[in-house]
Amino acid sequence: MIAIKNNNNEINDQKIIDQIRCLGIDMINEAGSGHPGIVLSAAPLIYMLYAKHMNISIENPNFFNRDRFVMSCGHGSALLYATLHMAGFNIELEDLKKFRKIDSITPGHPEYGLTPGVDMTTGPLGQGIASAVGMAMGEAHLKALFNKNDNIIDFYTYVLCGDGDLMEGISYEALSLAGTLKLKKLIVLYDSNNVSLDGKTSLTFTEDIEKRFTSMGWDYHLIDSDNNLEEINNAINLAKTSDKPSLIEVKTVIGKYSKLQGTNLVHGTPLDLEDISMIKKKLGFRDIPFLVTSDTMEDMQYLINKRCNNIVEEFNQKVENLPFELKDKLKHFLNKDYYIDFSKLDFEMPLNNSELLRESSSKVLASLVLGNDTLFGGSADLFMACKNYVKDGGDFSKDNYLGKNIYFGVREHAMGAILNGLALLGFRPYGSTFLSFSDYLRPSLRLSALMNLPVTYIFTHDSITVGEDGPTHQAVEQLTSLRAIPNVEVYRPADANEVIGVYKSIFEHKTPSIISLSRNKLDVLENTKISEVSKGAYVVVDYEAKLDGVLLATGEELHQAIELSKRLLNKGLHLRVVSVPCLSKFLKNDSKYQEEVIPLGIKKIALEAGSSLSWNKIIFQDKYILSIEEFGYSGNYKDVLKKFSFDIESLEKRIENLLK
Amino acid sequence: MIAIKNNNNEINDQKIIDQIRCLGIDMINEAGSGHPGIVLSAAPLIYMLYAKHMNISIENPNFFNRDRFVMSCGHGSALLYATLHMAGFNIELEDLKKFRKIDSITPGHPEYGLTPGVDMTTGPLGQGIASAVGMAMGEAHLKALFNKNDNIIDFYTYVLCGDGDLMEGISYEALSLAGTLKLKKLIVLYDSNNVSLDGKTSLTFTEDIEKRFTSMGWDYHLIDSDNNLEEINNAINLAKTSDKPSLIEVKTVIGKYSKLQGTNLVHGTPLDLEDISMIKKKLGFRDIPFLVTSDTMEDMQYLINKRCNNIVEEFNQKVENLPFELKDKLKHFLNKDYYIDFSKLDFEMPLNNSELLRESSSKVLASLVLGNDTLFGGSADLFMACKNYVKDGGDFSKDNYLGKNIYFGVREHAMGAILNGLALLGFRPYGSTFLSFSDYLRPSLRLSALMNLPVTYIFTHDSITVGEDGPTHQAVEQLTSLRAIPNVEVYRPADANEVIGVYKSIFEHKTPSIISLSRNKLDVLENTKISEVSKGAYVVVDYEAKLDGVLLATGEELHQAIELSKRLLNKGLHLRVVSVPCLSKFLKNDSKYQEEVIPLGIKKIALEAGSSLSWNKIIFQDKYILSIEEFGYSGNYKDVLKKFSFDIESLEKRIENLLK
Repeated sequence: MIAIKNNNNEINDQKIIDQIRCLGIDMINEAGSGHPGIVLSAAPLIYMLYAKHMNISIENPNFFNRDRFVMSCGHGSALLYATLHMAGFNIELEDLKKFRKIDSITPGHPEYGLTPGVDMTTGPLGQGIASAVGMAMGEAHLKALFNKNDNIIDFYTYVLCGDGDLMEGISYEALSLAGTLKLKKLIVLYDSNNVSLDGKTSLTFTEDIEKRFTSMGWDYHLIDSDNNLEEINNAINLAKTSDKPSLIEVKTVIGKYSKLQGTNLVHGTPLDLEDISMIKKKLGFRDIPFLVTSDTMEDMQYLINKRCNNIVEEFNQKVENLPFELKDKLKHFLNKDYYIDFSKLDFEMPLNNSELLRESSSKVLASLVLGNDTLFGGSADLFMACKNYVKDGGDFSKDNYLGKNIYFGVREHAMGAILNGLALLGFRPYGSTFLSFSDYLRPSLRLSALMNLPVTYIFTHDSITVGEDGPTHQAVEQLTSLRAIPNVEVYRPADANEVIGVYKSIFEHKTPSIISLSRNKLDVLENTKISEVSKGAYVVVDYEAKLDGVLLATGEELHQAIELSKRLLNKGLHLRVVSVPCLSKFLKNDSKYQEEVIPLGIKKIALEAGSSLSWNKIIFQDKYILSIEEFGYSGNYKDVLKKFSFDIESLEKRIENLLK
Repeated sequence: MIAIKNNNNEINDQKIIDQIRCLGIDMINEAGSGHPGIVLSAAPLIYMLYAKHMNISIENPNFFNRDRFVMSCGHGSALLYATLHMAGFNIELEDLKKFRKIDSITPGHPEYGLTPGVDMTTGPLGQGIASAVGMAMGEAHLKALFNKNDNIIDFYTYVLCGDGDLMEGISYEALSLAGTLKLKKLIVLYDSNNVSLDGKTSLTFTEDIEKRFTSMGWDYHLIDSDNNLEEINNAINLAKTSDKPSLIEVKTVIGKYSKLQGTNLVHGTPLDLEDISMIKKKLGFRDIPFLVTSDTMEDMQYLINKRCNNIVEEFNQKVENLPFELKDKLKHFLNKDYYIDFSKLDFEMPLNNSELLRESSSKVLASLVLGNDTLFGGSADLFMACKNYVKDGGDFSKDNYLGKNIYFGVREHAMGAILNGLALLGFRPYGSTFLSFSDYLRPSLRLSALMNLPVTYIFTHDSITVGEDGPTHQAVEQLTSLRAIPNVEVYRPADANEVIGVYKSIFEHKTPSIISLSRNKLDVLENTKISEVSKGAYVVVDYEAKLDGVLLATGEELHQAIELSKRLLNKGLHLRVVSVPCLSKFLKNDSKYQEEVIPLGIKKIALEAGSSLSWNKIIFQDKYILSIEEFGYSGNYKDVLKKFSFDIESLEKRIENLLK
C-alpha cells in the first residue's frame, strides 16, 4: 500500500499541500458545512509535521511510541482527515465524501476511537492544547520509568492550534505549567491568521505572543509566511532539540486563495462552487471534486515510510531487550490494562475508628499507587485539603519526572485536561479539588466522558457541612449536575469501608468516575460493606418487624440516617436505612434487586444535603426528599445544618411527620 | 463618627497597618479557622488603597461613583473586614468577633449585599479579578454615556489578588481583554508571596510576571518589599495616570512576623496563641484580643475623610447640573431600575413565519437595547452564530467605549465574570455562546446566582439538533445541570412568540436567567402565548373529548409534540400538548394551576432532547420521559434524531405504545 520512491528530489511539497487543500474544501462542500478557512491556511503546517517529522505507523495507528498529534482547533477536522488519507491511514476517499454525515468515521470534529490516526477528541477550544501538555507530562514520566539503559520511550507531542485556543483560559493554565515543567518534547504550531469567527482578532486579542510565551518559559519561533516551508522545517528542528517547550507561530492567511481570504466570512461556511473552481485553478488542479493525483499521495507516503519504516520493529526489539521487570511493567501500558491489585482492597476498616474520608481515600490510593505505574495524579493546589498526596511517591517536577505527585497549581481546568492527556497514553490518572470547584473543570470532565477515559476525579468538601468557608465553597447543585453527565459514575461514600468499595468499583470499570468526599470526620459504620458498593445501593439497617419506611442516604448523611432510625425506633417506628454510594449504578440494577432494597408500597424518604433533582428518579413527591435547594451559609457546620433544619433533631421531627 | 485631625504629619501609617494585622489574626483565632497568611502579608497593600487613594463614602457605602475594591483572593476576608472596620464602615468590633459565624455580617468569604463596603462576592479564585475587568469596562462605557460636559462618572476599580488568582485561566482571559481595551482605570495590586496552599509557587508558577503583563498591554510596577509604603504609593499614583491598566506586584512575606512566615503552613490555619502573642510583641501591640488603639482608628478615618469629605455632594451637584435627558438616564443606574419598555414586547409574531429563534431573540433584544443604557452585552466570539449582535449599536472598543456590542473573544469564562462586574454597576448585561459551552462559564454563572445579579445568558445551538458539529457541540446534560443551580431560571422557548414572552418574564425579575435557543428554523405557532410564558407552562393544543394523555415539551420539541398530537388524533387518540418554556417557574405555581395544565389521573409524557433528570419532578416513571441520555453524533440533524428514535415517525410509535 505504501509507495516507495527512490529519488527524493522529485517530491513537490507544495503540490501535496495544495492537494490537501483541494480535498479539504471538496469535503466541506460535499458536506454542506464545515470550516474552509483553516483548511486553506494551515495545510502547510500539518503537512510539514506528517511528511517531514512525525514518527507514526500507518498500519498501526495506535503504536505506543508514536509521536502524538492533537488538532486543538478541532473545527479543522477536514484538514486532518484529508491529511490522514493522504498519509495512507485507513481513511478512504469514500470516508472523506461522508464527512460530517451520520455513522461516518469523519465526523464534524475529530473523535478519539472512531478514526484511525485521531489521537484525541477536540472541538471545544483550548482542550486539545491543554491535554497535549498532559501527554508531554506522561511522556516525561514514562521516560523516567522505562528509559534506564535504552531510549525506549521517546515521542513528541505536536499540536496545531488557532487564536481561539490561545484565548481560552485553559490554554494559559496548561502552557504556564508546561513551561515550569520544561516539557521539551511539546511542540505547538500556531496557525496565526489574525481572524476569528466574529472578525479581526485586533478587536479582542492583541497580545505580544513572543513575550507571552517566553514569559512562561517557552521557546518561540516566528515564521512570517506559510510559504516558507524551509523555515517551518527549521523551526520544528530547533524545537525538537530545545530544552523547553516550543511555540512556532506561522503567519497564515485564513481561507487563502478564496475570494474571501483574510476575512471572518471564510471561517465556518462552505465556499461556493465558483470560488472552489477558482482556487483549484490558482493551485493548478483540475476542477473535479475529490480528485487525488497519484503522485501527491505516493510522494507523501514515501516520505513517511522512509522515516518510519522500522520504528515499530525497533521499538518492539527494545521492549524485548528490557529487563523482565521493566518489560512486564511496560506491557501494562502497551495493553492498556491497569493491573489494579484488588487484594489490597479486600480488607474492612476497624470499627469505632473515626477519620476523615479524605484520609481513608488517601490510604487506599497510596496502597495502590506505589506499586502501580499506571496510577498517576495530583491536586490543583489542594493536596493539603484533599489529602491525596502520596507519601513516598515523590514530587513530579522538571528535576524529577519520576515523581508520582503532580502539583497542578490553582488550575482546575488544566488539571482536568491534563488528566485526559495522561489517560490517552494509558495512565489511570486522578486529580483533586473541592466539589464546589468541579465547575471549573466541567468542559474537560465532559471530554473524559466523551472519550471514555478512566480518569478519577476526587472532589472533597462536598456539601454545606464545609461550614465556615461559606456558600462559595459549599456544593449544593454539583452532585446533581455531575450525575446528569452521560457516561460518568458519581460516588459518594459514607465511611472508610465504602471508600474502599468505591475505589474497587471505580477500578473495575474504564469509564470516568467521581468520588465525592465530605469535609468532616466520620466513624466507620457497622454495616457498611465494601462488596456492596458496586451495586450502587444496599441495606445497612433493617428490622424484622413490618417497615414504616425506607430512608435513603449518601455520604455524611448516612450517619444521620442511622441515628434517625435508632431514634425513631424508640418511638415505635421501623425505618430501614439504605446507603446509596452510587445512584446511577443502583438504577442500572434489575427491578428485582431494586425492589429488594426499596420494597414497593412503603414510604421512601431520601436524605442528601444537596439538590433534590437527582432523587426524583426514586421518589416522586418532593416532600419525601430532604434536600437543600438554595445556597449555603458561612458558619460552624452544625449551625449551618440547623439553618436548613438538617440537624438531627429537626430531621427527626421532619421524618416523624412524613411517616404519620 | 469620623475623627478630624489637624496635623496630618502625626499619622503613623505603619502602626495602622499593624493594627489591622492584629485585628485580622484575632478574628481568625476567635473563629477557629481562616487565612492568617494573607492578613499579615497584604495589610500594607489594602491600607494604602483605603487610606491614601480610594474615593469612598463611609456613610453611603453604595455611593455610585465610589472607587470599587475587589478582594479577588476572597480568603483574605478577615483583612478586608478589619480594614473596613478601621475605615469606619458600619462593621462593629462585635461583628469582627463573629467572623465566620452563622448569621454574622462577616462570613468566611466576602459576600456582596451582606456587608457594607463589600463590592463583590469572592472566594472562587480568579472570579474577582475578572469581574473587576467588567467593572472597568462598565466605567468606561458610563463615562462615554454621561461625561458630556462634565467629568461626572469617574472611578477606579482596584483589585487585590494573589498567586492563585493569576494561575486561574479566567484571569488571563479577562486581563488580556483588559489590555486590548486599554482599561486605564483598572489597577491590580498583586500580593506576591511565592507561596500557595501546597507549597512554594516555584513548583507550579514560574512566570516572568512583568513580561506576561506587558505582553498583554499592561503597565507593570515591581515593589520589592511591602515595607516600601512610599513606593507602593508612587506606583498607585503612576497607575492612576497611565493610559493602560496596571499591575503593581508587591513582594510580600506570607504570614509575616509569624514563626511560620514564608511557608505554606501559615496560609489557611489559625496561628497558635504563643505565635499571636509574639507577633503582637514584635509589632509593639499589647497582647489583648481585639484591642484597637483609638489613635490608629482615628488616623485612618481622618485620612479617608480628608479626601472623601465632599465627594457625594459634589457628585450629586454634578447630577443636578446634567441636562434633563442625561439626568433621567443616569438615575436609572443610580436607582438600579432597568426601565424596560414592556410595550415594545407586547406584540405577537405573524403566523406562518419561519425563522431562527436566534433571529427572533436578536430582534427583541435590539428593539430594547437601542433605547436603554442599562442593557449592554456581547458574545464570546459567536455573534455570527448566536445572532445577538445589536445592529446600529456600535462596537465597544478602546476607540469607542460608547459601543453597545462587546467582543469578548473566545473567552466564555471571562465573559461570565465580566457580565457579573457590569451587573454590579447597575447594568442588565447579557452574553452569548453555545449551550454546550455554558460549561466553560459555570463558576461565573454560579456567582451571578449567589449575588442575585440580573445577568441574561443567551445559549444557542441547544441540543443534538446542532447536527453536523457533533457530540462536542451538542448539549445533552446542560439543561438539567443548569436547572439544578439555585436562583437561576432556565427558559427554553419554542417559537418567536415565546421568545418575546421569555424576555418579558426575564425582565420582570432581577435574578440571573438563561435563554436556551435551538439551531434550526422554526415556525411561529398558532397557540403560543407571550403572556403565558411567565407561568412556566401552559396548554397549546387541547381537545374537548376525554384526554388520552398530556404531552409536555420545550423548545424545538414542542413543534414535534404538536405534530404528534395531530397524527395521533387520526388514530383516535386525544393528546393535550403543553408547552413548558420554564420548568422551574411552572413548579412554583400553586397546585390548582398545575393540575389545570396537567390534570391528575391522565398519562403524562415529556419530550425533551436532553437528560431526563429534570423531568422526574413531573413524571415519575422514566419510560414516560422521552429523553436523550447519551452523547450525540455528527450528522445531519434529521439523521441524528433518527439515531435516537427522535424523528417524528419513531416518536409517534413510541407514544402510541405508551398510550396503549
